Amino acid sequence: MSKTLLELAVYLGGRVNGDPSVTIGGLGTLDNAVAGQITFLANPRYAAKVETTTASAIVLTAAAETFGRNVIIVDNPYLAFAKLLTFFTSRPRIARGVMPGAFIGVGVTIGTEPSIYPGATIADKVCIGDRVTIHPNVTLYDGVVLGDDVTLHAGVSIREGCRIGNRVTIHNGAVIGSDGFGYAPDGQSWFKIPQIGIVVIGDDVEIGANTTVDRAALETTRIGRGTKIDNLAQIAHNCQIGEDCIIVAQVGIAGSVTLGRHVTLGGQAAIVDHATIGENAMISGQSGVFGNVAAGAIVSGTPAMPHQARLKCAAVYPYLPEMRKSLGKLAKRMKEVEERLEPSSAQA
Amino acid sequence: MSKTLLELAVYLGGRVNGDPSVTIGGLGTLDNAVAGQITFLANPRYAAKVETTTASAIVLTAAAETFGRNVIIVDNPYLAFAKLLTFFTSRPRIARGVMPGAFIGVGVTIGTEPSIYPGATIADKVCIGDRVTIHPNVTLYDGVVLGDDVTLHAGVSIREGCRIGNRVTIHNGAVIGSDGFGYAPDGQSWFKIPQIGIVVIGDDVEIGANTTVDRAALETTRIGRGTKIDNLAQIAHNCQIGEDCIIVAQVGIAGSVTLGRHVTLGGQAAIVDHATIGENAMISGQSGVFGNVAAGAIVSGTPAMPHQARLKCAAVYPYLPEMRKSLGKLAKRMKEVEERLEPSSAQA
Amino acid sequence: MSKTLLELAVYLGGRVNGDPSVTIGGLGTLDNAVAGQITFLANPRYAAKVETTTASAIVLTAAAETFGRNVIIVDNPYLAFAKLLTFFTSRPRIARGVMPGAFIGVGVTIGTEPSIYPGATIADKVCIGDRVTIHPNVTLYDGVVLGDDVTLHAGVSIREGCRIGNRVTIHNGAVIGSDGFGYAPDGQSWFKIPQIGIVVIGDDVEIGANTTVDRAALETTRIGRGTKIDNLAQIAHNCQIGEDCIIVAQVGIAGSVTLGRHVTLGGQAAIVDHATIGENAMISGQSGVFGNVAAGAIVSGTPAMPHQARLKCAAVYPYLPEMRKSLGKLAKRMKEVEERLEPSSAQA
Repeated sequence: MSKTLLELAVYLGGRVNGDPSVTIGGLGTLDNAVAGQITFLANPRYAAKVETTTASAIVLTAAAETFGRNVIIVDNPYLAFAKLLTFFTSRPRIARGVMPGAFIGVGVTIGTEPSIYPGATIADKVCIGDRVTIHPNVTLYDGVVLGDDVTLHAGVSIREGCRIGNRVTIHNGAVIGSDGFGYAPDGQSWFKIPQIGIVVIGDDVEIGANTTVDRAALETTRIGRGTKIDNLAQIAHNCQIGEDCIIVAQVGIAGSVTLGRHVTLGGQAAIVDHATIGENAMISGQSGVFGNVAAGAIVSGTPAMPHQARLKCAAVYPYLPEMRKSLGKLAKRMKEVEERLEPSSAQA
Repeated sequence: MSKTLLELAVYLGGRVNGDPSVTIGGLGTLDNAVAGQITFLANPRYAAKVETTTASAIVLTAAAETFGRNVIIVDNPYLAFAKLLTFFTSRPRIARGVMPGAFIGVGVTIGTEPSIYPGATIADKVCIGDRVTIHPNVTLYDGVVLGDDVTLHAGVSIREGCRIGNRVTIHNGAVIGSDGFGYAPDGQSWFKIPQIGIVVIGDDVEIGANTTVDRAALETTRIGRGTKIDNLAQIAHNCQIGEDCIIVAQVGIAGSVTLGRHVTLGGQAAIVDHATIGENAMISGQSGVFGNVAAGAIVSGTPAMPHQARLKCAAVYPYLPEMRKSLGKLAKRMKEVEERLEPSSAQA
Repeated sequence: MSKTLLELAVYLGGRVNGDPSVTIGGLGTLDNAVAGQITFLANPRYAAKVETTTASAIVLTAAAETFGRNVIIVDNPYLAFAKLLTFFTSRPRIARGVMPGAFIGVGVTIGTEPSIYPGATIADKVCIGDRVTIHPNVTLYDGVVLGDDVTLHAGVSIREGCRIGNRVTIHNGAVIGSDGFGYAPDGQSWFKIPQIGIVVIGDDVEIGANTTVDRAALETTRIGRGTKIDNLAQIAHNCQIGEDCIIVAQVGIAGSVTLGRHVTLGGQAAIVDHATIGENAMISGQSGVFGNVAAGAIVSGTPAMPHQARLKCAAVYPYLPEMRKSLGKLAKRMKEVEERLEPSSAQA
């Protein structure tokens, strides 16, 4: 699949500087791209390679030196790279239909061009949109609703009544809508609180392998449009996750947490129940958040605190033994000084 | 399904104050319950709402003001709420039998009223109790034993020889009886120690989605009656988990740990191998426990320490840079004072 | 299955001291072994039990007192125990063939003596070695390659094009080759970077239940020969994991991390993206590694630092409130001393 530089520029929303008719058939790095391929300059540190790369064209910003090469100028070359990689590597989806060995319950509706593989089990009254791919050994419980262009990888479970938006991808083994962890104590043992809510997942969400998203106790656990969740994360019952959030692997979010839009949670970070995290906040990996976080704040550590202040504290931490020793010596010297000044009444 | 207030009071083990013949058909909150519904007061902060709620009756404690409303008086209104929610939302289980697409090995015994869904695979010599529900794509290996009223959600695996008690629920993707992580070092590489023990899970246990419980090396990994485990937790080989424990999501318990009864482990907490945690101990989220914990203790942090002391330390932590600076200044001032007092022999 | 002491010594690479013709039919501990069994002394603390054990023979080192018993002398009795346990407990593998209810795609090649269980789904062009066991509800995507003597437990998914070496065991629910977590930000939302690389797993690797290993963005995520990974660990895209590493449960390794050979990562430890960990390094449980670690280093804490230094700091941490108080008192006393020495110009 080849395109002219001009066609690629239009696709990327950029403009050509040089020969717009150059033909491009693929993508490579500054170092390994060959003639007929396009590459990109995202890190200014490598600016000099624009002159010497064997690629036929380069995507770069208006601020970069072009060295007279054929280039496409864009605002965000890294984004352009992602788009070009998608363009040159995506293959047309082939609808396999409902294959033998798939089990379909009663009252199920299935849109156009499905691929439903052997071992997939679709319970009763499930509603499936168009161009949906359901890999082997996926289980959809009663009343699940899937939007269009959804991909569910092998081993995914979606529990009763949960609703998945359009263009959602859920990776292998993820569980959507398992019971929230709610029990009433009677002093000795634990009485289960029925978890009768659901999970609603917005459009363009991606959920990683073996991640779990629990159904609400009474109402709805929500994952906002465009949010991306990595592997092995835990989203507890009643959470309200905003749009376009990034949740890295092994994050744990306790019950009834609210995330504003475009929040970033580093790997293994944890958030205590009922906390509210403001939009654009960033929470560093392994942090433990025990309360609310303001919009735009960057926090780290357990308990989490402003990240820059935290770095300063962490830099002092290794001096703790020395500090304690110094403190002891100072106290001794102080006592000596005080005794010298006023021997009869010095402080103990 | 409607009941009189008196009937509900009997079910809850409480007593009516007001009209025992009032008919109740459902449950709501203090704010949203409507006529014909019952609500509950668990948090004294909302006591005034008892007067104004549109519910037909309220569950509350003997200490609460009734405002002349129809009430049920109980010791634990939150527990009563859980029981009422169960009562009004539970639906009768329908036995589906062994459905086409389920695979049943040789020498398998199955009790009365099973529901075994397509894609469930039951290996040889498995023994299944009464009223058991096995969802799609569950795998039971040879010789597994399930008690009565067990529910195994889609994607659960139970490995060879493990035994599950009565009224146990295991959520999607959980793995019971995978090999413990045991190797003998030969200095260069690792020789696997066969893991030939089993897992035994007591009655009334609930295990969360994608949680893993490893089989013992030689004997038995045990989960005590009534214990509740959240999602994505790891219980290593040979652990002896007591009764009525609460183990929140992403907890990691290393090999041969013993938990007394009614221990609480917060999310992402970890316990080092061979530690013993006394009954009723509470371990805060993200804590790292590197030794034994006494019965009734409340600990937090890594390494874990008494929680109240930890909070005081954590409150001082942000002052570390300031403390180090103060210490440096004090040392300098001390030297000046000492030189002034005895210029010729001041300490360096 | 009985062997003479001499035969066992040959198997273990040790030598007999005593009667080489003694017949051994099994294995026990120093405390519970009976006549006809062999036991082992690994911990010198129990040396006296060699005299009194009812076992017929003991495996021990040349340094141990034999008390005139029949013994096998080896360098590493714990390793010998693992080997004897394997010898006495392993049962011959029975090839079940491709069982009804397994789904096999087109262009699949399968070696000799397979066991492929019901509900296993093998997509097109998969290549399977000899003596491979594929349990129920395993899914192999297009083009997967499995070596000889591989065991895949129920619920495992291996994504398109990934390659698994010889004698690899993957436990239940593990996911190999799910998409790496890569997105290009456009300031508001996230554009997916196609993950078109693969995962290559070396010979003799073992991977725990519900662990996830992501495919590379463009090239290869690698797990080196002999490495053992516990349950619920996350290995992100493009990681290069060395040979004979030990990765304990719930470890999280971010993208493009390199581990040298024989690295040990304690449970819940995390490593930041692009870090390099030198061979034989040890990283303690729950540590957060935010940069490179030198070969042979032992580190702990978040951020990780040398372990011995860390222990000293952690020992001082509980004194923080007391230190801050002391510091305040010292400053006050210092001011008083300074005022006494030079009342008019004392420092504030």
